[in-house]
Amino acid sequence: MGNKVVVVGAVAAGPKAAVRIKRLDPDADVVLIDQDNLISYGGCGIPYYVSGDVPDEKELRSTSFHMLRDEPFFEKAKGLTMMTSTRVTAINRDRKTVITEHVVTGDVQHIAYDKLMLATGSQPIIPPIGGVDLDGVFTINNLHTAIEIKDRIAKGLVGKAVVIGGGAIGIEMAEAFKDLWGVEATIVEFKDQLLPSLVDWELADILARHLRDSGLEVLLSEAALEITGDGDGRACTVKTSRREIDCDMVIIAVGVRPRSELAAAAGLHVSMSGAIVVNERMQTSDPDIYAAGDCVEITNLVSGRRFFAPLGSLANRQGRVAGDNIAGIPSIFKGGVGSFIMKGFDMSIGSAGLTLRAAREAGFDADISLTSPVDRAHFYPTQAIACFIMVFDRRTRRVLGFQGIGPMGDGILARINGAAPLLCAGATIEDFATIEMAYSPPFSAAIDSINAAAYVADNLCDRRMRTIPMAEFIDHMKNPGRDPGLVMLDVRHPKQAQPFIDRFGADWWLSIPYEEVRERFRELPADKTMVIICNAGSRSYEIQVVLDHHGYANTLVLAGGINVVKRMNVDFLP
Amino acid sequence: MGNKVVVVGAVAAGPKAAVRIKRLDPDADVVLIDQDNLISYGGCGIPYYVSGDVPDEKELRSTSFHMLRDEPFFEKAKGLTMMTSTRVTAINRDRKTVITEHVVTGDVQHIAYDKLMLATGSQPIIPPIGGVDLDGVFTINNLHTAIEIKDRIAKGLVGKAVVIGGGAIGIEMAEAFKDLWGVEATIVEFKDQLLPSLVDWELADILARHLRDSGLEVLLSEAALEITGDGDGRACTVKTSRREIDCDMVIIAVGVRPRSELAAAAGLHVSMSGAIVVNERMQTSDPDIYAAGDCVEITNLVSGRRFFAPLGSLANRQGRVAGDNIAGIPSIFKGGVGSFIMKGFDMSIGSAGLTLRAAREAGFDADISLTSPVDRAHFYPTQAIACFIMVFDRRTRRVLGFQGIGPMGDGILARINGAAPLLCAGATIEDFATIEMAYSPPFSAAIDSINAAAYVADNLCDRRMRTIPMAEFIDHMKNPGRDPGLVMLDVRHPKQAQPFIDRFGADWWLSIPYEEVRERFRELPADKTMVIICNAGSRSYEIQVVLDHHGYANTLVLAGGINVVKRMNVDFLP
Repeated sequence: MGNKVVVVGAVAAGPKAAVRIKRLDPDADVVLIDQDNLISYGGCGIPYYVSGDVPDEKELRSTSFHMLRDEPFFEKAKGLTMMTSTRVTAINRDRKTVITEHVVTGDVQHIAYDKLMLATGSQPIIPPIGGVDLDGVFTINNLHTAIEIKDRIAKGLVGKAVVIGGGAIGIEMAEAFKDLWGVEATIVEFKDQLLPSLVDWELADILARHLRDSGLEVLLSEAALEITGDGDGRACTVKTSRREIDCDMVIIAVGVRPRSELAAAAGLHVSMSGAIVVNERMQTSDPDIYAAGDCVEITNLVSGRRFFAPLGSLANRQGRVAGDNIAGIPSIFKGGVGSFIMKGFDMSIGSAGLTLRAAREAGFDADISLTSPVDRAHFYPTQAIACFIMVFDRRTRRVLGFQGIGPMGDGILARINGAAPLLCAGATIEDFATIEMAYSPPFSAAIDSINAAAYVADNLCDRRMRTIPMAEFIDHMKNPGRDPGLVMLDVRHPKQAQPFIDRFGADWWLSIPYEEVRERFRELPADKTMVIICNAGSRSYEIQVVLDHHGYANTLVLAGGINVVKRMNVDFLP
Repeated sequence: MGNKVVVVGAVAAGPKAAVRIKRLDPDADVVLIDQDNLISYGGCGIPYYVSGDVPDEKELRSTSFHMLRDEPFFEKAKGLTMMTSTRVTAINRDRKTVITEHVVTGDVQHIAYDKLMLATGSQPIIPPIGGVDLDGVFTINNLHTAIEIKDRIAKGLVGKAVVIGGGAIGIEMAEAFKDLWGVEATIVEFKDQLLPSLVDWELADILARHLRDSGLEVLLSEAALEITGDGDGRACTVKTSRREIDCDMVIIAVGVRPRSELAAAAGLHVSMSGAIVVNERMQTSDPDIYAAGDCVEITNLVSGRRFFAPLGSLANRQGRVAGDNIAGIPSIFKGGVGSFIMKGFDMSIGSAGLTLRAAREAGFDADISLTSPVDRAHFYPTQAIACFIMVFDRRTRRVLGFQGIGPMGDGILARINGAAPLLCAGATIEDFATIEMAYSPPFSAAIDSINAAAYVADNLCDRRMRTIPMAEFIDHMKNPGRDPGLVMLDVRHPKQAQPFIDRFGADWWLSIPYEEVRERFRELPADKTMVIICNAGSRSYEIQVVLDHHGYANTLVLAGGINVVKRMNVDFLP
């Protein structure tokens, strides 16, 4: 009774925990503190507010029943004590108080707590380059900046924007600029692909191609070196390692880092990467202090390592678990796999678990299956191609990650959501091969994309199937014939092969239709490496088996086939 | 080497196993036998062929690369020995042969096998009523009937059709008739709801309402007693327990049963329900004979019991496992949870695991959470309401089933696919509460529908939340005031409550807005049971907690709220 709980941070994890505590223990005195006056908003919705899809910022901080989640709402409807525009400057763990300062009046208070919860969130990383303080340079860190950005666009002040950072927020912001406002937008990404920590490069390349086709400029492997301003101190140019880009606005979206200064100053255990360390009950190193959301690290259920996953979805789940424990209901948060989904114009891209790169860095004997199935029954009129990567460990046959890109809609989500629980459970290729995804022709194929990806992984793992890495294939296509020991074998219909033969010559681009190989294999050059090509990779695999059986062992399958290649940023296709 | 494999049945599991065996063991001599001449077709696509979505039946039996899966295809491209239009009349297990008879020529052959696989499928159940043999009465059991049905419709011979059976195939066929051809269609279902084995009645009622709104006649709790014909022997009337319905065509879709006569005659173990009994390797009681697909029973991974799940998706998975084992790669099929998805005009409905009814019959202490969340961020423009039922066991907190209905698209699929792996793994409410579904505003809410359903289940299980069963609520609404000890408490905005007050009176339909209850609860009648009502049920639960805290303990929450009720077949709403 009379449990006094102070919650610091009122965006996602904080309010979630606070109202849960109050519901579980109505006698509790719950104080919710935030330095901002705009609270409890859907931060992930900011790009859609800027784009105009969400007309009013108030909708981002309203309930589903259209009630504004402001200070009076939390006090009247939820029974909390609210302190907004109030910064917590210190925690006195001995006295069990927090010291607060009102950001306008400067009033200082000491608030006692029995249990304290830190939901201090994250803050944007500012790259160490000149000009980041110029007018017109923004990070996406709260609603105020979002309002300011939209205001400037709506006033016609922005004809061209540069987004530094090709992660999810950067891409979403660039789309918002271009799609609804017609603002020219350039994404400048330091690494060699978009979404580097979320998907492998083949899918990122498909996304980059689609963003370019949709009117964005996407610059990869290019560092933003300096932002320069005009005479009035307004940002007007971004200088990169390769060019200067004129602009009226710059968005810095190179990532976020945990806000843990308060925790660290109070002597709580903070990790090397700056995140507050918590256990599965979301308890910090002080058992009376909990933390949740973007300020903590969690366990990656695939790698077993701690990782920083600043996702609104996880913040809410953690907040509820923290709230349960504070209110006396034992509850645990085991960790996550970083489930991710994003809209990019007319495509959606998603992932869960580890990328190939991350898996190898984590020490796995990792490889991928790359597939390009139709996303529903191939005879159903709305069917379309999607591309998937399954990352697996060759030694243990455990699946480590799953990624997909396809048409906008919930189809990719359906596969990521199907894969995530399996990844959390340490599932193997066999588990993925037999897991029962719902089937009906308007929704899926009888063998779902997830199962099909596992089938390929199974064949790879057992070395019944040998593939050529996509990068090597692209290199050969850019330099046809440079390797005299390698030719292409197209097993598609001759009509599909003909334009390739016309471009590359019949000596290098061999063509025997799939159904004729069993009879005509003797026409093939036994002394050469043959890259077997079809649309999706499945016919190529069958032909590899047939040729192996006849002693033609030097074949490699182009996994995912032409379906994947023709969606990538390549210019060698006829 | 030289393994001789005979596969009986060439629709789904059979071809899947046959080609897999041939890939794993190219030396194997694989014979694929079917009594039909049209083989390897997507049976689940038949309604979409009849509707015209799929213009040509050949597309149902083509590969994704548009090659017809006919006899020459399997011989040339896959290397099988094909025997179509050939019936297997007996298995001689001692001699390890099957005896075949050509359906046209009558030729008899004895084919030796080392391993035999039975994929004999299922056959439609014919109800014991008169007139089932009349011209114009069809079951959906093969492509020939589908072609005949579409042919008659295309010729303008069908103005009105009656579908006997309100399962998935019946509903899909009725939609096909109505949606693309304008054929009037009536569904006659003996049980009191549509999809009785797949979803609970609340969601089935929403579907029935939508089918009616879309122009179908849906008759429930009504038995088809007889089909009568005209002077030419053509079906012209279906007589039910309540009426006579004139029609030009009758579809019988009351379910299927396993085809196991061949297995039974050979002395293989067949279950009480007529399904071939197999182990996890898909082996029958004869270790050299495998079986897969609609002719077998599998383990229900929720109930632990054997069940009959005639689904194309499962048939393919089982076929692959059987193929692996026959080719010498140990592989197991653990079972399934009956994952299901279906289009019904502009809605989609899906499920996995057990319904409440099935769970109680299986001995669980089962209950449900009924929720009606928005299917993506509530501020995102394409958001819509979906309705979900989570079935759980109160004693063990295990989740037993998950069902949903919402707008057409892949949103429901994304939740069923997320739930299925968890159900297979025996997951608890806590697992569902914290599982990480991918989040971004265009796709989902930060707390996904799956998590939200688990939160409610958690509150129910811990008895923090008490609900009124939907059937009881409807009964009260149909008889307002009949129970003098019960009133309604509407906590929505007064504008939403007013039409209800106008209809039911302010004494029975009390209204205090959600955010005012903490101050105004003393206005409420402490001596009455109050049913708390909002749009989705979440505000109602919060108010229940507040009122409990103040000693008003006789409250019940309307789970799912008005969102659910207004989508059901009710006429009492203002």
